[in-house]
Amino acid sequence: MSGFIDIIEKKRDKGKLTKEEIQYFIDGYVAGEIPDYQVSALLMAIYLNGCDSEETYELTMAMARSGDIMDLSDIPGIKVDKHSTGGVGDKVTLIVAPIAASCGVPTAKMSGRGLGFTGGTIDKLESIPNFSVTLSEEDFISQVKNTGYALIGQSKDLAPADKLLYALRDVTGTVGCAPLIASSIMSKKIAAGSDAIVLEVTHGTGAFMKDEESAVELARIMMDIGRRAGLKMTAVITDMNEPLGHAIGNSVEVIEAIEALKGRADEDVMEVMKEIIPDMIIAGERATSKEEAWKMATEVIESGKALECFKKMIEAQHGDPMVTEDYGRFKSAPLTTGVHAQSDGYLRVKSCAGIGECVKILGGGRVTKEQEIDLSVGLCMKKKNGDSVKKGDLLCEIYSLNEETANEASKQFLSSVSVVDEKPEKARLIYTLDE
Amino acid sequence: MSGFIDIIEKKRDKGKLTKEEIQYFIDGYVAGEIPDYQVSALLMAIYLNGCDSEETYELTMAMARSGDIMDLSDIPGIKVDKHSTGGVGDKVTLIVAPIAASCGVPTAKMSGRGLGFTGGTIDKLESIPNFSVTLSEEDFISQVKNTGYALIGQSKDLAPADKLLYALRDVTGTVGCAPLIASSIMSKKIAAGSDAIVLEVTHGTGAFMKDEESAVELARIMMDIGRRAGLKMTAVITDMNEPLGHAIGNSVEVIEAIEALKGRADEDVMEVMKEIIPDMIIAGERATSKEEAWKMATEVIESGKALECFKKMIEAQHGDPMVTEDYGRFKSAPLTTGVHAQSDGYLRVKSCAGIGECVKILGGGRVTKEQEIDLSVGLCMKKKNGDSVKKGDLLCEIYSLNEETANEASKQFLSSVSVVDEKPEKARLIYTLDE
Repeated sequence: MSGFIDIIEKKRDKGKLTKEEIQYFIDGYVAGEIPDYQVSALLMAIYLNGCDSEETYELTMAMARSGDIMDLSDIPGIKVDKHSTGGVGDKVTLIVAPIAASCGVPTAKMSGRGLGFTGGTIDKLESIPNFSVTLSEEDFISQVKNTGYALIGQSKDLAPADKLLYALRDVTGTVGCAPLIASSIMSKKIAAGSDAIVLEVTHGTGAFMKDEESAVELARIMMDIGRRAGLKMTAVITDMNEPLGHAIGNSVEVIEAIEALKGRADEDVMEVMKEIIPDMIIAGERATSKEEAWKMATEVIESGKALECFKKMIEAQHGDPMVTEDYGRFKSAPLTTGVHAQSDGYLRVKSCAGIGECVKILGGGRVTKEQEIDLSVGLCMKKKNGDSVKKGDLLCEIYSLNEETANEASKQFLSSVSVVDEKPEKARLIYTLDE
Repeated sequence: MSGFIDIIEKKRDKGKLTKEEIQYFIDGYVAGEIPDYQVSALLMAIYLNGCDSEETYELTMAMARSGDIMDLSDIPGIKVDKHSTGGVGDKVTLIVAPIAASCGVPTAKMSGRGLGFTGGTIDKLESIPNFSVTLSEEDFISQVKNTGYALIGQSKDLAPADKLLYALRDVTGTVGCAPLIASSIMSKKIAAGSDAIVLEVTHGTGAFMKDEESAVELARIMMDIGRRAGLKMTAVITDMNEPLGHAIGNSVEVIEAIEALKGRADEDVMEVMKEIIPDMIIAGERATSKEEAWKMATEVIESGKALECFKKMIEAQHGDPMVTEDYGRFKSAPLTTGVHAQSDGYLRVKSCAGIGECVKILGGGRVTKEQEIDLSVGLCMKKKNGDSVKKGDLLCEIYSLNEETANEASKQFLSSVSVVDEKPEKARLIYTLDE
């Protein structure tokens, strides 16, 4: 045990941990030989004294090696994964994956569930009747081969060290630390076996990183880890000071994603698509310029090929593909309540996370990991940040299980926005990070 | 639980903890409601971000209040405690307490056991046949009333929070942090109920603090805590780059202390006595100047009153007081081995802790808290740092249970000293800290 105390003291004194020391830490923790109380002391020392790029890479690799590493070599072509650090109303993964797949870029994606004010792609997909987010490794690979695209939940055997560490960080004030966030995300991505990763790194009041600077820092750390591991890496920095698109919830976001696949994306969603989809197509070596790639994307949207691909994925995963044509096939919430403007002016989103909280209040977002959630509740914004509104205008529709949660969510929504005299800047800054 | 995460995050972000937050932490930890892994994260944040004097005071008081606080008000006069941060061969407490008591300063002292390279007063006293280091609170107080002096082991009910925290710090790399060391020591001192404390804060290769600057810092923090708690505080800074006096072990140090009480102290021990004893007498308001106080001290040494007081204490605590006249009454180690100089020159102590390690090798010092130790083993240095030596001169005598440990301890001793051509500076710096 004194070996691990030496490691704690080294990091405490701003030393650099070796590959062997990091491996000893991860192996010992996963084996239950190093107790939580020693690991949390090390995590706090890392939080406060940092890790350099080599340490962060070795930590990521040790975590990735703590479980299975997927072998996707049977799937021809360059497999491209896409990961978002999460945001309110972020349904981008649902949209971009079938489009990229339709352009010939195989996408074998594992996603997580939502926690706190951000949703999770896996929860959203489960709102499709009978949809299964669990596939055997064999079925997962063969589906990507056949349809170009599969989207399932994270396997329990992937990076188990990350699960243990994340749970401990969550209760010891050591979550918001770039090297720990980066290694947590990248250990799972590396274990998931793709050849290239397009990262969507969000910042703002509706994201985990609160400012652009820390989002860029996190993106650079993750790109560095991926490249050291031999992966092609791209990162898109996205502003999350207001919800992305208009729907926030689970089934409502799937519906908005289907609309986008039909060519009817909201303006801000479209802007994000225009960055991420070309990045994926270029990473998959199906185009060499953004213009060429975006042209391919618009073609598969207009021809219906992208929607078709999405439907095939649903069918392969035992869901009802007809939801794409008849939204009535989604379970719908019993109560719809309008929230109206109380004065004239311009809508300003004060807290994007605050709007995300509405879904939690409605029972559609998790407070604890174990919580069961309702996939039919949510809200649709009828006015966006910067829109002009008149007193009495419908600002949003809330879909709830009962009146009580509807009232509480309405109050929460109103406290997260305001109607102001001066038009707020509508500046959703989206860009692909320079190399 | 989220309440405690907020506290961790506040300290992580260099915030100042309130009295209420610190009380919540200590209460929750002692009650078993806050788990070790959260406390160790907070300890590391404190280690790296520090605590200001107010936080350190509140932490100390919360720890002191976690158990019983001794009420010594039945004992007339100003009760003076003396505490050393520990050093190799530091038998000062054994000497100064009966002298101060003989000068009319009641001394109700609780001491600890040794760990690592430093010894503990309680272990040393137990080398006196039948001596009991445990007294009921009532007997303890009445002994101080009758003989002016009692010296017992730390009660288990005193500052239990400190015991828990110390054990956790020991395995999480958070021991060597001034606010945590200071609050640990002072919580026990405050709970022990004296009115004044004279601190002996050691530094050097044979002490816990390695340099004078950190010893002074620690002393100032402890004095500040004590004064905020309404105690009279004095601190003496002592160099421990060589052992204090010539004996290192348990019974051998008691014998050296008895010799000092008989007026035959080594020069360096005498220097420490000249600082600490007057500080204690002045704190006890039995003299107003160092000169006056030291005159009183020499009188009680010369008259035999100090030794008589020590004998009465031994008798009251069921020990054999005749050990003071016949050292043969101490259990003696079966084997005495001489260690001799291998060349001509001057003796230089390279590592004082290294010499302390000899006692551990001989079985007289603890590696773990639970370990049983032998009180008869140890060593006596026949030459001190800076003494001129000829090849073949006796450097030290080692008292061991067998030849094997004697040989190992001899090697350890020789590797901790060297014989050099140039006379090393003999600079044991001892001074009472300015206000």
